[in-house]
Amino acid sequence: MGLNRFTWHGGGLAAARAQFGDGPWLDLSTGINPCPWPHAGAVAAAVDWQPLPDESALRGLEQAAAAHFGCAAAQVCAVPGTEIGLRLIGDLIGGTGCHAVPGYRTHVEMLRASVAVADPESADGASLVLANPNNPDGRLLTPPMLRELLHRRGDHGWLLLDEAFADAHPQASLAGDIADARRLVIFRSFGKFFGLAGLRLGFVLGPRALLAALRARLGAWPLCAAALAVGEAAYRDGTWIADTRDALQERAASLDAALCSKGYTVGGACPLFRLVRGVDGAALFDHLARQHILARPFADRPDWLRLGLPGDAARLARLVQALPSHG
Amino acid sequence: MGLNRFTWHGGGLAAARAQFGDGPWLDLSTGINPCPWPHAGAVAAAVDWQPLPDESALRGLEQAAAAHFGCAAAQVCAVPGTEIGLRLIGDLIGGTGCHAVPGYRTHVEMLRASVAVADPESADGASLVLANPNNPDGRLLTPPMLRELLHRRGDHGWLLLDEAFADAHPQASLAGDIADARRLVIFRSFGKFFGLAGLRLGFVLGPRALLAALRARLGAWPLCAAALAVGEAAYRDGTWIADTRDALQERAASLDAALCSKGYTVGGACPLFRLVRGVDGAALFDHLARQHILARPFADRPDWLRLGLPGDAARLARLVQALPSHG
Repeated sequence: MGLNRFTWHGGGLAAARAQFGDGPWLDLSTGINPCPWPHAGAVAAAVDWQPLPDESALRGLEQAAAAHFGCAAAQVCAVPGTEIGLRLIGDLIGGTGCHAVPGYRTHVEMLRASVAVADPESADGASLVLANPNNPDGRLLTPPMLRELLHRRGDHGWLLLDEAFADAHPQASLAGDIADARRLVIFRSFGKFFGLAGLRLGFVLGPRALLAALRARLGAWPLCAAALAVGEAAYRDGTWIADTRDALQERAASLDAALCSKGYTVGGACPLFRLVRGVDGAALFDHLARQHILARPFADRPDWLRLGLPGDAARLARLVQALPSHG
Repeated sequence: MGLNRFTWHGGGLAAARAQFGDGPWLDLSTGINPCPWPHAGAVAAAVDWQPLPDESALRGLEQAAAAHFGCAAAQVCAVPGTEIGLRLIGDLIGGTGCHAVPGYRTHVEMLRASVAVADPESADGASLVLANPNNPDGRLLTPPMLRELLHRRGDHGWLLLDEAFADAHPQASLAGDIADARRLVIFRSFGKFFGLAGLRLGFVLGPRALLAALRARLGAWPLCAAALAVGEAAYRDGTWIADTRDALQERAASLDAALCSKGYTVGGACPLFRLVRGVDGAALFDHLARQHILARPFADRPDWLRLGLPGDAARLARLVQALPSHG
């Protein structure tokens, strides 16, 4: 299968095992926090899977999430993974538009005949899909810059802002700007910052009329019982959230220092992943994969390789040892 | 809130507690098997919530489900609950159509400007949404009758067949008729027969081109890790499935006998719920709710009340004791 599975999305560990052999793999192919919120197992083990989830549990989750995002609960709709949210909103808004590149693969598929734009300021008047911080390059725009981009949408375009990796940057979120009269939609992901991607939990923030249409597509019980229970408890754990913001920055700084010491150029504001530039991405991917370390190459940027955070000092040491010196 | 919450959908136990008081409620408002597949807790407790679910787990679930349904795995797409599947397929197929009445609430919302038809044979040429066995009246059509209804769709209409309660009637399923050139879509639900509605797991069976469009709406990871693991293991548990088909029939017969002995007229082929006719549904709902037994009334059929199966002899006795004699 070559690189195809690995440039499609991160997380293809079964494919990696099939191609490069079984063993204790170190998966750095995603931007998922390797040190997850620690109570998911206990909360999920107490879940009663038998009844339909009660509506009140969904409202409780949306209230806890809204408090974390900094907006009203009525402006938040929980979805079974941001992937579904991105695709349903693209369809509900309709029409054509643009997506910022480099960017996340699914953004390309949200709007019909979407046009790639390298400079978001070049797409005035059209709907625009954009991630902040951006994936994979970690570019972080400030709220004034984002508001300017929203203003440039004119009277008909929407700003569709993917804040999947924004939990580490609360000051950069535009969640407080969501309003019924504003064509701004924000997507948030639970699994990345909280390190629990298997829960499939995401959120769409937007005008209430749009969320009503989204809820009509989702039906009465969009989330499994574990997503409701774990999500609400985790969003209410302010101490863990604050500690994790600090810890991620420290861990990213350690990774950067190690990469620099080996001669690599690394960048991006998002601590959940680091982008290595100016390398032969396919060769470096292959070199690491043969040592059972899974990185994230890009089909259209052969000079890039994205690395997620190693979960501890031993895993960081394993990565550093596996990396050839560069330059 | 009166009856509104309770005629909307079953499962409103939190609302029932708020209105009628807390305590040990007996929830008979849904058609969910009260004796669930017994290993969900153990399988879910072993789930690793951290990584993104691997594609191979989704394929494994769809293969196990297809073997249970009696069709090819390529004709099966897993969805996070049948609710979402019904709504997305209605949108993907587009156009107007009809839905059989009496029927499930969501069927009304699947097709634009959908027309209610009491006689499914009166809607030739149009798309038709129909459940088999039907909910809430338990009417069971045979495959030849269903094939005739499919034939009556003509050259443009679709038969959208909701087999949410079909697991107890494998001989009645049309799953083996799914084909790429046939405008037949079948919806299956995991949570009802297996008694695990909180898992939010359903399936859409249909032509591969339609499933490809559905998968494009769902994105790469439509299901949580627990739904993947529990669903596959449960569908592969042929012994439990066979035993449960027998046990549900026995339990339904016991409930029918008890209801008859109290003077009620009860009907329907589906053992997961029984429809009581010729009663004052609101009054009987209220009478039971005051004794903390939740039944399912219908806004447009005030003479009906639906009862799910009590999970054991003690719960059946509690229901019988709470019911006033009738007629």
